[in-house]
Amino acid sequence: MTVASGALPRLPRRVSIREVGPRDGLQNEAIILATDDKLRLINALAATGLTWIEVGSFVHPQRVPQMADTAMVCARLPRRSGITYSVIAPNVTGARRALEAGIDSVEVFLSASESHNQRNLNMDIAQSLRTVTAMAALLREAGHPFQATLSVAFGCPFEGAVPLERVLELCGHLLDLGIAQLTLADTAGMAHPRLIQQLGWAFHERFPRHRLRLHLHNAHGAGLANVLAALQIGVTAFDSSIGGIGGCPIAPGAPGNLCTEDLVHMLHAMDIDTGIDLHALIDCTRMLEHLLGREVPGQTIKAGVCTHLTG
Amino acid sequence: MTVASGALPRLPRRVSIREVGPRDGLQNEAIILATDDKLRLINALAATGLTWIEVGSFVHPQRVPQMADTAMVCARLPRRSGITYSVIAPNVTGARRALEAGIDSVEVFLSASESHNQRNLNMDIAQSLRTVTAMAALLREAGHPFQATLSVAFGCPFEGAVPLERVLELCGHLLDLGIAQLTLADTAGMAHPRLIQQLGWAFHERFPRHRLRLHLHNAHGAGLANVLAALQIGVTAFDSSIGGIGGCPIAPGAPGNLCTEDLVHMLHAMDIDTGIDLHALIDCTRMLEHLLGREVPGQTIKAGVCTHLTG
Repeated sequence: MTVASGALPRLPRRVSIREVGPRDGLQNEAIILATDDKLRLINALAATGLTWIEVGSFVHPQRVPQMADTAMVCARLPRRSGITYSVIAPNVTGARRALEAGIDSVEVFLSASESHNQRNLNMDIAQSLRTVTAMAALLREAGHPFQATLSVAFGCPFEGAVPLERVLELCGHLLDLGIAQLTLADTAGMAHPRLIQQLGWAFHERFPRHRLRLHLHNAHGAGLANVLAALQIGVTAFDSSIGGIGGCPIAPGAPGNLCTEDLVHMLHAMDIDTGIDLHALIDCTRMLEHLLGREVPGQTIKAGVCTHLTG
Repeated sequence: MTVASGALPRLPRRVSIREVGPRDGLQNEAIILATDDKLRLINALAATGLTWIEVGSFVHPQRVPQMADTAMVCARLPRRSGITYSVIAPNVTGARRALEAGIDSVEVFLSASESHNQRNLNMDIAQSLRTVTAMAALLREAGHPFQATLSVAFGCPFEGAVPLERVLELCGHLLDLGIAQLTLADTAGMAHPRLIQQLGWAFHERFPRHRLRLHLHNAHGAGLANVLAALQIGVTAFDSSIGGIGGCPIAPGAPGNLCTEDLVHMLHAMDIDTGIDLHALIDCTRMLEHLLGREVPGQTIKAGVCTHLTG
């Protein structure tokens, strides 16, 4: 292959990040943080310029003990203009509790593969579709914003590759619910740049009026390569977790989430705006390391911010 | 920004990897490995399908004690057809020792910034250019293949950004020596995808007959994103280290090398051939972890190989 032409895909000028550390990150940690500590962390995150923070989930506390205090966290969230706080909910009961907690926004979810859906939600996909339809009716009636995530959209740890047509079919069902935004999640860390572009492009062709959000993990170190591939096809919304903590409770060995400060570092280096103060964000990760009593997998916290991005 | 057109850059079908773990990786480790252990590791690496392994350096043993046994390592390398073994040498004495050791190939190097060159080679760039010219004369006379690396080509930890024109000027000087291949190194881990494409493209325009090799680090988690950016402009040769070990002895906090098994995992997932057996490579990384008595930074060793790449 010869050197390619200089005409490379244009990149977006601005990217929007949903910080999922306080929920998807923490839920995998052995140490249960005190509610006060979670709120200190969320307060600090809310001061970095982040506009969306996922703060908890209304799943059964026996299933995810770390999230047992989500209602208390919701009640004490720092109110700042321009910030959306969201939770995830697995069923109608969870959605009702989210409404009672007065959270800004609720995320419903199901998996693209039967095996993962069964293990994660204890039901088959058909039943999950009925569940999210009932949740959507409840949330719409309450005039409440909600979104959806399709898990293991880039591959299932139990079944392997998920057929593209199946992913698009489930996307269609979820979009029909009237959700504000759909997120495709690489829950098991099986995505790669070519797959990101194939699936992202197929989604755009099928649903041209909708814009995707991607929830990526840093499996095999390819998290930011997948971001670059997504940016090149115009995706501008990503989930990430400070420190790159997280994983998948039902997929052992699954790697951590895309690391927020690594994502912001790369985007800023490429002159892509996030509205986030990188140094303030790194301070949050230091607080997180202190709370967890361990090093986190992110790289920027070790390497420091590049000199040309400081000051 | 709207979703970009489906016409994305074509990717190469095959990539060539130089494994630098036994040299650039190990030289930063606190534990000095026994020569026998190094040779066990190199033997295992040579059986994975790798075609080029950097096995040592002829620098002063007081400066890099881990490399003090390079001559002994060279004398006992497993001879296999299709594998090139190389060393780096900082000066004429080192090049002479490399010739005496009967190594296949020698790498000369200098830095793109004065501060890094002074700290790394204890001389200014003008003096380094005279040194590599003398080394080239010696190696050419002996009919010996040699290459060159330009360090901190994507930014210097002491001076910040290095002007593109200065990088190209130094590339020109090195190419004039008659080297087989030039490597641009992101020694301090300051590259990002846009810079990779800018510099890579500028190099191609200035030196259309030459093909670059890139030596990347995984600073800020962007190692594989930088690889993707490079693949998209036709770069097909990369350095990496098993486990992602390494750093920069004179730039504290500098992150590890691009991780070989993470690189191979992403390339194979994207149907880009490397000629390497990924499972055999991961066995080498396990051996490395055992020898070092610690976890390495690479991700694939933790997450495992994706199911669709196995068997």
